[in-house]
Amino acid sequence: MSERTRLRRLPERGSHDWPVIAAILDEALVCHVAFAAADGAGPVVIPTAHARAGRVLYLHGAPASRMLRTVGGGVDVCVAVTLLDGLVLARSLFHHSLNYRSVVAFGRATEVVDLDEKRRALLAFAEHVLRGRAAEVREPSAGELKATRVLALDLSDASAKLRTGPPVDDEDDLDLPVWAGVLPVALGIGPVVAETPRLAVPVSVRQAACDPRFAGRRFEDAATPVENSA
Amino acid sequence: MSERTRLRRLPERGSHDWPVIAAILDEALVCHVAFAAADGAGPVVIPTAHARAGRVLYLHGAPASRMLRTVGGGVDVCVAVTLLDGLVLARSLFHHSLNYRSVVAFGRATEVVDLDEKRRALLAFAEHVLRGRAAEVREPSAGELKATRVLALDLSDASAKLRTGPPVDDEDDLDLPVWAGVLPVALGIGPVVAETPRLAVPVSVRQAACDPRFAGRRFEDAATPVENSA
Repeated sequence: MSERTRLRRLPERGSHDWPVIAAILDEALVCHVAFAAADGAGPVVIPTAHARAGRVLYLHGAPASRMLRTVGGGVDVCVAVTLLDGLVLARSLFHHSLNYRSVVAFGRATEVVDLDEKRRALLAFAEHVLRGRAAEVREPSAGELKATRVLALDLSDASAKLRTGPPVDDEDDLDLPVWAGVLPVALGIGPVVAETPRLAVPVSVRQAACDPRFAGRRFEDAATPVENSA
Repeated sequence: MSERTRLRRLPERGSHDWPVIAAILDEALVCHVAFAAADGAGPVVIPTAHARAGRVLYLHGAPASRMLRTVGGGVDVCVAVTLLDGLVLARSLFHHSLNYRSVVAFGRATEVVDLDEKRRALLAFAEHVLRGRAAEVREPSAGELKATRVLALDLSDASAKLRTGPPVDDEDDLDLPVWAGVLPVALGIGPVVAETPRLAVPVSVRQAACDPRFAGRRFEDAATPVENSA
């Protein structure tokens, strides 16, 4: 690999390209939300599900959630999502790394009070979990809408950072008899665990293997074996 | 499913069990570090690699890294790691959820200046990326040790939170003709991309499929296709 190739590959770079940012947010199933604790006890970071609609990132949960109460109070917030793409195995220990795509967004969140927007946001969460799912299930009742706090964060101050490509070793190390390369990693799906075995597996689940987030990656074993309790 | 079963399953729960916390930290490839920006501009959260040794969480990177400079300055910090285990597909949109295991740790990080501890920490990072890898590669030089800032965070204030098991639907929804279940998700590994095709694939890479983090989960296509540039 020449020095020129290496430069062309830009193994680590930042991006303010909106399509890059949007694609990372849409592929990630969870985000990490950081805020200053209301009691002045320092920063807190909490994982939570998110959904995107246009340039807005939605967060949601129980009205009693400390994170939502604090973040919805007009304080500065920072949200990060990270996707892992590979283990970067260099000839030297020093140059080991990870391939990843991440987004960091700064802003202040506002509570969504309009019921139509709130309903659309809840549909977006279900669709974010699994495309096509929202149309298959019982829609939110008025009581459920009330029992959900939804926050909206404007994504105008967001940027992406990613590392891609092979390890970048020192020139002096290139002739070492040490194997180097990338071991790709990605999220895949395991065999579905039905609660309702008498009902046909719906389109959303059957198409999950074609979802770009899991494109074709099926596993026989899941990380957490879940027994069918139906 | 009876109400009693449901309660036994404890779908969402917190834990202060150290073995649970340690296992989640070890399985996760990245953590998210939250801190208050030094300029008073609010909270920042940044994804980064981590490694654990006993009750210490190590962070590392270039000495110029803003995150490491700030976090190493004795400020309050919060670190979260999150593993995804499944898409929880309920009969109602409202009860859709994710199965996950997460750890949140609070504390103040100190810079590791002792060279022996620093060297051990760097080995731990490579081992965290891939078990058995540290012994296969060129070890860090004195210059590389100097060019790496390592922070240590005591894990005495850490807790785990997780959701596991099937969707929890309202009793009134159990007879709806809506399929419900869990679609397990997990990180798997793709076909290795060698930079050094003339060298044999080493033990660390060959054993990766047996690593509990990827246990047996191999897929043919990676999320980010990486060309072999060797």
